[in-house]
Amino acid sequence: MDMIELPHAELPHPTDNAIFTAMEPHDPGSFANHATPLIYNCWYVAGRSSEFGRVPLARRLLSVDVVLWRTQAGAPVAMRNRCPHRSFPLARGKLMGDRLVCGYHGMEFGADGVCAHMPALSRAPSTATVRTFPTVDRGPLTWIWMGAPDLADEALIPDTSWLDNPSWGTVTGSFHIKSDYVAMHENLIDQTHFPFLHPDTVGTPEYARSKLTASTENNQVVIRRELKASAPPGVYGKPANIMHKRVDRTSEARFVSPALHTAFAQVRVLEPDAGQPPLYRYNITHAFTPETNNSIHYWWFNSRDYLPGDPAIDKFMVEAHSQAYYEDVEALEWINEVVRTDGEDQFDLSFAPDKPGLMARRIMYRLAMKEAR
Amino acid sequence: MDMIELPHAELPHPTDNAIFTAMEPHDPGSFANHATPLIYNCWYVAGRSSEFGRVPLARRLLSVDVVLWRTQAGAPVAMRNRCPHRSFPLARGKLMGDRLVCGYHGMEFGADGVCAHMPALSRAPSTATVRTFPTVDRGPLTWIWMGAPDLADEALIPDTSWLDNPSWGTVTGSFHIKSDYVAMHENLIDQTHFPFLHPDTVGTPEYARSKLTASTENNQVVIRRELKASAPPGVYGKPANIMHKRVDRTSEARFVSPALHTAFAQVRVLEPDAGQPPLYRYNITHAFTPETNNSIHYWWFNSRDYLPGDPAIDKFMVEAHSQAYYEDVEALEWINEVVRTDGEDQFDLSFAPDKPGLMARRIMYRLAMKEAR
Amino acid sequence: MDMIELPHAELPHPTDNAIFTAMEPHDPGSFANHATPLIYNCWYVAGRSSEFGRVPLARRLLSVDVVLWRTQAGAPVAMRNRCPHRSFPLARGKLMGDRLVCGYHGMEFGADGVCAHMPALSRAPSTATVRTFPTVDRGPLTWIWMGAPDLADEALIPDTSWLDNPSWGTVTGSFHIKSDYVAMHENLIDQTHFPFLHPDTVGTPEYARSKLTASTENNQVVIRRELKASAPPGVYGKPANIMHKRVDRTSEARFVSPALHTAFAQVRVLEPDAGQPPLYRYNITHAFTPETNNSIHYWWFNSRDYLPGDPAIDKFMVEAHSQAYYEDVEALEWINEVVRTDGEDQFDLSFAPDKPGLMARRIMYRLAMKEAR
Repeated sequence: MDMIELPHAELPHPTDNAIFTAMEPHDPGSFANHATPLIYNCWYVAGRSSEFGRVPLARRLLSVDVVLWRTQAGAPVAMRNRCPHRSFPLARGKLMGDRLVCGYHGMEFGADGVCAHMPALSRAPSTATVRTFPTVDRGPLTWIWMGAPDLADEALIPDTSWLDNPSWGTVTGSFHIKSDYVAMHENLIDQTHFPFLHPDTVGTPEYARSKLTASTENNQVVIRRELKASAPPGVYGKPANIMHKRVDRTSEARFVSPALHTAFAQVRVLEPDAGQPPLYRYNITHAFTPETNNSIHYWWFNSRDYLPGDPAIDKFMVEAHSQAYYEDVEALEWINEVVRTDGEDQFDLSFAPDKPGLMARRIMYRLAMKEAR
Repeated sequence: MDMIELPHAELPHPTDNAIFTAMEPHDPGSFANHATPLIYNCWYVAGRSSEFGRVPLARRLLSVDVVLWRTQAGAPVAMRNRCPHRSFPLARGKLMGDRLVCGYHGMEFGADGVCAHMPALSRAPSTATVRTFPTVDRGPLTWIWMGAPDLADEALIPDTSWLDNPSWGTVTGSFHIKSDYVAMHENLIDQTHFPFLHPDTVGTPEYARSKLTASTENNQVVIRRELKASAPPGVYGKPANIMHKRVDRTSEARFVSPALHTAFAQVRVLEPDAGQPPLYRYNITHAFTPETNNSIHYWWFNSRDYLPGDPAIDKFMVEAHSQAYYEDVEALEWINEVVRTDGEDQFDLSFAPDKPGLMARRIMYRLAMKEAR
Repeated sequence: MDMIELPHAELPHPTDNAIFTAMEPHDPGSFANHATPLIYNCWYVAGRSSEFGRVPLARRLLSVDVVLWRTQAGAPVAMRNRCPHRSFPLARGKLMGDRLVCGYHGMEFGADGVCAHMPALSRAPSTATVRTFPTVDRGPLTWIWMGAPDLADEALIPDTSWLDNPSWGTVTGSFHIKSDYVAMHENLIDQTHFPFLHPDTVGTPEYARSKLTASTENNQVVIRRELKASAPPGVYGKPANIMHKRVDRTSEARFVSPALHTAFAQVRVLEPDAGQPPLYRYNITHAFTPETNNSIHYWWFNSRDYLPGDPAIDKFMVEAHSQAYYEDVEALEWINEVVRTDGEDQFDLSFAPDKPGLMARRIMYRLAMKEAR
């Protein structure tokens, strides 16, 4: 485990510039960025499990055109959206029982991708197959593995069990983002931007100045913070109706994999009213999948451990989080636009507080290079 | 002559997979595809002869900007749409008598492309010329030769004399297609897609299962079919009012050149009513010209040898064929989009029924390579 | 000084074709064109001085994203529109006093580009800087130097003092042009296109046939014309109300620098009425800056030495010049479209009257090559 303790921003800290100097300019060859090859050996979210059914749906994932559908028994199926015969997009065909029928010459493919019937031939050509991708439903998400098939171990699918736990109240939303997923991971594990990009939502000044630890654990990066006896942030205090209380806060943000970022926040009320829960928990799930090196499918979820289904709280949570995440989306798209069109290259400077993001980018870089070999 | 007989799809056929195996994956270096250089030594259709007149018209043909107009005597003229002086598009200029005047500095070019006057000079610079292209009117079409000028033999212009034969009734339509012309040729000479892409128009099951022969004749590919004592297809039976009859059908589809595909269909009524013609003939003309490697100008014609000018039949024929051809256009554009944007290459598999298309693609490949040398 | 005298177009001139031959095809390696690297060591117009204030404004200049703003004291500031930390576009941030605050992590940069504060660090990282560009206000224009900083000599900013001289009446307009600035310089110094591209405005036939001299002076190109006892052109005669008079005209058009073209026209009334000024002067200012190699920011000004602020004359001048310049803009965009998309390259032919444009293009080529070394 590689743990560092990041400086408290309020105090003079002699190592600030030492770290800064050591990292500037950081070696672009050892941290992933928008030009790093995508990582395929990873479970990614293909979409909401409710999106896939008996109408084939096309989606580009990791630069590959994929068609997703379900068998009559409900099993999710993913295959290349491209007939092996003449590249007709299979999502433009139709389902007949458990076969996807190409709309051009009627070739029929089973859920295993093998051609079961070709109308113009007396026997189906047994070697004609469409590449399929392992898919697994987990609550509201359907996961897909687009890397080496023999490495597709379902045990590697990250835990998001709270998403379909009925005792948790979950709200959700989606964005399609013109940016790269590396910048998005760095954005999510970096909380020093809260007061500036999100001044009206999550960006309380106390939180930005709280001390944190960052560590790596098996290709994950975790940052943890504690904040004692402070005012609750509106985004968590208002729905719990505890804005008049003092609270202890802990939070953990985690780069789980190239496909997932999670955060766990706990708010402990110091002097709860009679009958009031002393502890409020929030799990935040950021699932996102590169469409290409330059665009992202993004699904977010905010889950709370109290009053599931309460319509007023649900409405508040959707609005507050949609606004905050949209601020991130805009920022990522603005940056992406500059990086891709500005006539002069520029290497990013990095500072001590960038460590968590750089740790995640170093992991992603190593994973990408391992595949490239 | 290279003739093959394609298998009857209903019967088990031992050689299906043999042919299949031998062709999979076919050598991408010996069949034209979307990446093959365009073929210039060929007469192509520049457009409808009615499009070109005393207002210069710009059209990109075989990747080259061309301007087309007519002399006062009505002769078609084609030249590069680019003044040799400063590349001003000549189609933005205007005609003065039999000269096209550049809109920038007033250079005047005759139908031979030679500069006849430059206002800022006392004498026209005799070496200033615009490249011209031989053009020939043939009925409703104007043909252009954009290859080596010494090879532009008008005798090579394919016969489409039925198009302006008053005893034939002809309907016509146009499309601009985002696809490559190789895929379009393969689509036109392949009839095994009829039941799937055109289930409501030309796709009768009997026809798809009829036996065919395919042969090459002097860089052309011909497929012929016969179907005895069958129900007529609606697209031909309805306008002739013979849907209640049994008919013998023959058809010939021909890859004439990189610029043209024709088809000739005959429907012979087995027991014609008194006064009814025993034979109905249809000539179908598909003229198309690459705008670029990735887009096509397309003009189609359907000619019948009875009741020319009948408005009800004309209306039926336009609607039925527009729908069927639009289905092809959509399919070609979908395929083109996948082929050009999917992040992973894919070599097409080919099967025995693909032979005619592959024969055409092999001819196109050889023609393209011959020019490249 | 390199002076040539260009032929009078009406008379046969034995050297026409000699010059023509010598220049065809001109060596593409010695005259700038759309593919020549941009020239940075030059003062360019960043925009109207009125555009820049206390709201940061983003503008791409010479392919580089720049943000422009003013200090509280009103001094213009230009810096890269890209935070050195994570490339956030600084124009999306906000001004706090004389600092521009990045909208992502709150880094604050002074007008000198040095980071003065980074909220997440206890001390500002002294080596974190944004590149700034020297900027100077000159009347209605703000000039910027994007080349080597040590060469940014304000004495090199060309004189446009008439633009804010209250005894001159100036009208102005702007265009964003999809073209390259080399073609635009050539267009401006070439007057042989007037009768063809501008038949209704500046294109009088007498003027086009008048004799001119062209010379180079210190990397500038000057063409001078005289026209004796002729009718005044409407664009200058109508506002001065001298259309019924005979006038002597002189004009000087000057390629001042890659950033500027000026023209000075004088109209002397041969028999002025009592109380009428005998001389009318017009200064025309064409300031333009490549946004990229393929697009231009353009600001034009027409200044006259009489009746400043007269609303009727202002209206006439805006309309007449907007129309004429729009004709140039259209022509340049049409040419640019052909040059960049036509499938075949073409080298421009040049003729004797092209000498001034070629002289300017040769200067631009040498300046560009000098920087490249």
